[in-house]
Amino acid sequence: MQALLKFAVLGGGSWATAIVKMLTENLDTVHWYMRNETAITHIMTEGNNPNYLSSVDLKTASLFLTSDINEAITAADFLIFAIPSAFLDQELQNLNTSFENKVIFSAIKGIVPETGLIVGEHFHDTYQVPFENIGVITGPCHAEEVALERLSYLTIACADETKAKLLAEHLNSHYIKTKISDDIIGTEYAAMLKNIYAIAAGIAHGLGYGDNFQSVLMSNAIREMKRFIARVHKMKRNINNSAYLGDLLVTGYSTFSRNRMFGNMIGKGYTVKSAQMEMNMVAEGYYATKSAHLLNQKHEKKSKTPIIDAVYQVLYENKNAKKTFKKLTEKLD
Amino acid sequence: MQALLKFAVLGGGSWATAIVKMLTENLDTVHWYMRNETAITHIMTEGNNPNYLSSVDLKTASLFLTSDINEAITAADFLIFAIPSAFLDQELQNLNTSFENKVIFSAIKGIVPETGLIVGEHFHDTYQVPFENIGVITGPCHAEEVALERLSYLTIACADETKAKLLAEHLNSHYIKTKISDDIIGTEYAAMLKNIYAIAAGIAHGLGYGDNFQSVLMSNAIREMKRFIARVHKMKRNINNSAYLGDLLVTGYSTFSRNRMFGNMIGKGYTVKSAQMEMNMVAEGYYATKSAHLLNQKHEKKSKTPIIDAVYQVLYENKNAKKTFKKLTEKLD
Repeated sequence: MQALLKFAVLGGGSWATAIVKMLTENLDTVHWYMRNETAITHIMTEGNNPNYLSSVDLKTASLFLTSDINEAITAADFLIFAIPSAFLDQELQNLNTSFENKVIFSAIKGIVPETGLIVGEHFHDTYQVPFENIGVITGPCHAEEVALERLSYLTIACADETKAKLLAEHLNSHYIKTKISDDIIGTEYAAMLKNIYAIAAGIAHGLGYGDNFQSVLMSNAIREMKRFIARVHKMKRNINNSAYLGDLLVTGYSTFSRNRMFGNMIGKGYTVKSAQMEMNMVAEGYYATKSAHLLNQKHEKKSKTPIIDAVYQVLYENKNAKKTFKKLTEKLD
Repeated sequence: MQALLKFAVLGGGSWATAIVKMLTENLDTVHWYMRNETAITHIMTEGNNPNYLSSVDLKTASLFLTSDINEAITAADFLIFAIPSAFLDQELQNLNTSFENKVIFSAIKGIVPETGLIVGEHFHDTYQVPFENIGVITGPCHAEEVALERLSYLTIACADETKAKLLAEHLNSHYIKTKISDDIIGTEYAAMLKNIYAIAAGIAHGLGYGDNFQSVLMSNAIREMKRFIARVHKMKRNINNSAYLGDLLVTGYSTFSRNRMFGNMIGKGYTVKSAQMEMNMVAEGYYATKSAHLLNQKHEKKSKTPIIDAVYQVLYENKNAKKTFKKLTEKLD
């Protein structure tokens, strides 16, 4: 498809690579920014991203790769950010171009640590991007299954439905189905909160709780998520839709989720620091836990969030995981 | 506890054994009926059920075992049925005593094939047991985890709250937490429907669908379950409570679920008959699928149940699983 509108993907990780793959099923031109120049050279010569989803054969003829974020932003009308939230602010420091008239979709699951905001709000507050130009791409979707072309469903949320539909059309393929939503705040919070629940699932597993408990935890988690999101942004939404419940499940039940793995190590007795060092990274849910906690504190009438509270106490207040989760079990039903 | 009320468990399988274990944590006397006399002798001499959860040390001093169903029924005030639904009618043929003044709790997940009724309705319709004397014990709960004393949550449903609370008190222990509900119809249908969704999850897995799809399937399944149960018995219920969503998840995500295994074989290309022969049993969801289908047909305004429909077509109309599920994927979101 030779679209008049140009699309850029920003980020070099597995989710960015998966989105590039999806777009090149439909588009002859996809701009792609990543910092790593060695990876760019490898992609252009070998046809695959050496560091992520390396089994995917990329259509290099359609790719315009650059290590200059401004070049990618200037070239495109739709910008799809898939940079881990922990590095987003740092990457945007290099910006010398404007977001005016750009449509920004966030494929980032998390909180920008510097501002404590979800990505859409960060762009709105820090760069004055109007909400009708901000959208969210959300799962349930492991990038690894996109690589295998296993059927996956995405939700594309934007206050401006036309923009959501436009992006959705360019992502659809024989292995991708898309759904439109106008709940950018809710879907983004869901994507963030699910990582906290994945940490909780990991801690419980590490402590020796079984599948019966895991299902009770997920049942309580989706009710808690519903309350939390309703407090932040009240609107009519079915919390059991794929973008909320589906996304929670694909992460909470995944033994590959880094957040779940991080929780699991803590349940097994690692300290927070040693778990992070062992994993050689900070799981996104770690920041999300703090942000969710602070956000909940801000509200006069706090929503009841026993699971988030328990994870917060373990991660930030040095509380004993076993005792904290024992108390948590009394609050679940 | 020396309770004035007497309790009997009927059935010799793993779920019956788990319930006996739970009750003997609290009661000095538990009546237990099972057909298999060899197993009874083994239990009394060796202290464990040779065929199910054999690792569980049973408190034989508290057990009054019998292979005469009438003896157990006569002896007790509360009867907990944990006989597979496929054999319930046959077992009850031996009845020569009455259910008058008996409180009957069903721990059976399924449909009585002879009447197409859920167990509570079967007792009501066939034996005139009033609804205030009928209850349901429901999970999410794998018996195997009860054996390991892993924390599990049960929902005890009865129109008469006092009876639900009374039974709940006798099931509670350091590894069992209970919740009360008055939704006997809804919880029982949920327990039945989840087996159909577990078959669907198995078929999808067998066909090669991945985790992304599984989470979308579960997200659609809980919405479908909500519609289905609302049609059968409209009342205020939170479908995300453990008895509904939790029970769906513990089964749908279990690789040990016989229903999921049955579906998986069909997805892999086995015929329905050969899968049943290979498993040496009929998965409960097989009957549930037919009953749910018939029940939905009965309603003038059918509820939209694409997943049940797809499973029905594969199991009963000899439709090709791959094609049927391909069509199903178009109806999910």
